[in-house]
Amino acid sequence: MEFTIRNAEKRDTPRMLELVNELALFEKEPHAVLVTLAELTAAGFGEKPLFHCFVAEANGKVQGMALVYPRYSTWVGPVIHLEDLIVSESHRGSGIGSALLEQVVLYGKEQGVRRISWEVLDWNDPAIAFYEARGARVMRDWNVVQLDEKGMETFLKK
Amino acid sequence: MEFTIRNAEKRDTPRMLELVNELALFEKEPHAVLVTLAELTAAGFGEKPLFHCFVAEANGKVQGMALVYPRYSTWVGPVIHLEDLIVSESHRGSGIGSALLEQVVLYGKEQGVRRISWEVLDWNDPAIAFYEARGARVMRDWNVVQLDEKGMETFLKK
Repeated sequence: MEFTIRNAEKRDTPRMLELVNELALFEKEPHAVLVTLAELTAAGFGEKPLFHCFVAEANGKVQGMALVYPRYSTWVGPVIHLEDLIVSESHRGSGIGSALLEQVVLYGKEQGVRRISWEVLDWNDPAIAFYEARGARVMRDWNVVQLDEKGMETFLKK
Repeated sequence: MEFTIRNAEKRDTPRMLELVNELALFEKEPHAVLVTLAELTAAGFGEKPLFHCFVAEANGKVQGMALVYPRYSTWVGPVIHLEDLIVSESHRGSGIGSALLEQVVLYGKEQGVRRISWEVLDWNDPAIAFYEARGARVMRDWNVVQLDEKGMETFLKK
């Protein structure tokens, strides 16, 4: 299958949001996406972009995306975080995921970071196998913690 | 015990790096801290700060810190990430951790974010109990993935 990897543009945001929703469904969180198209567009393509996004285009349609932004580690300094690596279900196994991840690693190297980080669901065996085959370390002893909007309110009321 | 919470200043970085190393030792990664004092200082107190840090001072000495920076979630939009919440071992149980976390939640509310996120080691029971008692959700099915500098090089050579 032929595809090209390029930087996302403002016109891509409707398709990007579709892919984000497709992933949320796969991750059994179909109602978790609160971000609107206007918010995503403003965040990514306004004056101070909050992320950078690469997309994979096949036959004129975006079928995959990798969304990254900088983080800071007090151990290794500036790092790149891969928030989403998504390939539409119809295009899995086409090499798009590998090509997007390679683009992210190149981007990290250009930025001079010592690490690229991301998160994975522990039951997502195909994703874990994919990452480990590419040299990434899945740190099963490190869990993600979240305090959501309601939790923040409750915390401050106490 | 009396203490005050304030924004970290440039002069605090030597003590901040001490606390970072103390935590790395606790987390059984004594050699993981590659960041130098000059790098930490430049990252936090240069023209474009990569993080914001709160410190807790007791008897004129910094005994705790909370280091945060913005991230972007494609589900809920801008979020605040708590990279490190550290209280020196001699000052555990003094309320410093709670006060620092409260400051972080206030900061997140000021920034208008819908979430504060962080990471925890799954064997760090006191930390997990502390977080859960304050309404945070420890997502045991979400693991952290890292591709380090050597892994990045290997990936790009293939």
